[in-house]
Amino acid sequence: MQKIGILGGGQLGRMLLQAAANYPVTTYVLENDAHSPAAHLCHYFTKGDIRNFDDVYNFGKDLDAITIEIENVNIEALEKLEQEGKVIFPKPAVLKIICNKAAQKNYYTEHKIPTSPYVLTHNIDDLAQQTEFLPAVHKLAEGGYDGKGVQVINDESDIAKGFDALSVLEKKVNIAKEIAMMIAVGVDGKIALYPAVEMVFDTSLNLLAFQLCPAEISKEVYYKAEAIALASVKNLNSPGIFAVEMFVTPDGDVLVNEMAPRVHNSGHHTIEAHYSSQFDMLWRIMLQYPLGSTDPIQSSLMQNIIGAEGYSGAAHYEGLEEMLKIENAFFHIYGKAETKPGRKMGHVTIVSNEKADLLHKANRIKHNLSVVSKK
Amino acid sequence: MQKIGILGGGQLGRMLLQAAANYPVTTYVLENDAHSPAAHLCHYFTKGDIRNFDDVYNFGKDLDAITIEIENVNIEALEKLEQEGKVIFPKPAVLKIICNKAAQKNYYTEHKIPTSPYVLTHNIDDLAQQTEFLPAVHKLAEGGYDGKGVQVINDESDIAKGFDALSVLEKKVNIAKEIAMMIAVGVDGKIALYPAVEMVFDTSLNLLAFQLCPAEISKEVYYKAEAIALASVKNLNSPGIFAVEMFVTPDGDVLVNEMAPRVHNSGHHTIEAHYSSQFDMLWRIMLQYPLGSTDPIQSSLMQNIIGAEGYSGAAHYEGLEEMLKIENAFFHIYGKAETKPGRKMGHVTIVSNEKADLLHKANRIKHNLSVVSKK
Repeated sequence: MQKIGILGGGQLGRMLLQAAANYPVTTYVLENDAHSPAAHLCHYFTKGDIRNFDDVYNFGKDLDAITIEIENVNIEALEKLEQEGKVIFPKPAVLKIICNKAAQKNYYTEHKIPTSPYVLTHNIDDLAQQTEFLPAVHKLAEGGYDGKGVQVINDESDIAKGFDALSVLEKKVNIAKEIAMMIAVGVDGKIALYPAVEMVFDTSLNLLAFQLCPAEISKEVYYKAEAIALASVKNLNSPGIFAVEMFVTPDGDVLVNEMAPRVHNSGHHTIEAHYSSQFDMLWRIMLQYPLGSTDPIQSSLMQNIIGAEGYSGAAHYEGLEEMLKIENAFFHIYGKAETKPGRKMGHVTIVSNEKADLLHKANRIKHNLSVVSKK
Repeated sequence: MQKIGILGGGQLGRMLLQAAANYPVTTYVLENDAHSPAAHLCHYFTKGDIRNFDDVYNFGKDLDAITIEIENVNIEALEKLEQEGKVIFPKPAVLKIICNKAAQKNYYTEHKIPTSPYVLTHNIDDLAQQTEFLPAVHKLAEGGYDGKGVQVINDESDIAKGFDALSVLEKKVNIAKEIAMMIAVGVDGKIALYPAVEMVFDTSLNLLAFQLCPAEISKEVYYKAEAIALASVKNLNSPGIFAVEMFVTPDGDVLVNEMAPRVHNSGHHTIEAHYSSQFDMLWRIMLQYPLGSTDPIQSSLMQNIIGAEGYSGAAHYEGLEEMLKIENAFFHIYGKAETKPGRKMGHVTIVSNEKADLLHKANRIKHNLSVVSKK
């Protein structure tokens, strides 16, 4: 059996390992936290730092292939492993582009992939010279994560809030919709696209409220998005699974926002709503099987289950029992012992070909399920 | 989080643990083989003999609840654990009935559940007195498994082949169809029934060829089967999940053949074809959540993937890659290192509302996928 390792042990690794149990494969996880969501589901767990060269190299050197469930890994170790003949999904060269926002923006420009206008700034003085480019968003090229390393710069008075290191200054664009597409690329170069999903935001909280599949966009926008997402992935020349997040402007233009070279939150609905899930698909790619079918079985809505504000500690899922009565809702609780405000603790996918049914049930779940800590 | 243990580490445990990762639960497995299909998917693995009193008792004494994936376990240890307040799915009293074919037959008679006519024999002399009851099938009350402990007694000349221990002599009945129903029973006594499935046999090999859901039976037979299956399970007075296998005679009578008080081969199709799978359902029962929906999403066909005759050794799945191109087929390879003739190595579920599509693809898979050993 092939030996395949995953860097990171979070919920993406957890769902990847649930899918792995359908295939003949021996699985390995490298992760610092032995109680992380994926730690117990692999054949062999290694405690270690995915950002440390030695930890990653030693983990990978006896495996056949390696993938990631988070980008923030030691790329140098993966490059050395690749030179030694290991197959890495995605290629380390892809991680170098994706993990650096400046490199990622330049990649889009180089390949004529539409993206919001930007300039690179190397320090605060650079930023100060860009007052005509404002309002804009300042994004640290490296090391930003989960909202950190991002700063809105509306006018001159905000410049002091900017970053004094290589950053991307991105022009604010008008956004009519945010959509995403998952794309699978086989080792043989074959490509399969999942239908686009639409992110619906809760504007009061500035949080993803839920995600609909398929996205409600015109055919014209759909084809444009498909072509742009394909170009974004094809030019990476790497097997793996990719999420391409895009903005649709009020004029119907499509701009790439960002990409992830791995299984992704915007593909969770594929577990129940599509013939081959994003997780199944990545195993097919890594085991060099044919790509799976990206066809939907039903339309779907995916909603994250997030730690409630004001609660930190041992997680308790208030209302879960009542919500489990909903017939066409599939709950995924990630088994994290501790909740924190905003922490992703699970998700639910509702399947139905009636949009009203999807929205009604998502709303019920939103108002009746909350992740709190026990008093 | 609740601590729930599984006795046995085979493919049923494997699929149970795949489903467990959707819920907040800490999982334990007791199994002699540390490389069995389920061993790596639990939080805590204990190497031990599920038929040994001490092994089962020590495994269970610090857990909240225990279930089985095979009946052949130490019932006395489970009884002691039950007395000490552990919840056992199913109750040990149920295992006592199910694990002894004489007790099982008497249970059906006691509760007026139709089953094929039988007499009990305690030794060969008893059997010799039953010539008027022949042709019949002689079944050892205890210890029979996978075809062992079963002997066809057509006439007097076969009597020497019978068992010299407590056995059931079952009259041969004419069978038009074999069907099965999965039934879920909550701790609160609530019951949910999955639609009946139909077993289609390969008469040349005397092996299950495949299984169709829903079964093609008349409404009258359906209601009869439902009532009989319900009575079979209800009188056990135990929470858990149950498979009831039944014969339909040419006259439309329904007779219970046997029961299993656990997740079962005849419920595998529920993973993809029903809203709540049999595995999801058992977790809901054990975690005292509401029962899931047994409604089908699509019709389905389930086919076991069996080790080919003439091959023993490291398993190789010849033709699997080609078969993975079939869009609506879901493969489950159990990850057993070694194949043997007739060994269950995996299964595939095909979903479609077109019966011709189900049959055509099942036939393709039957002829193009074989589990052999590497030369």
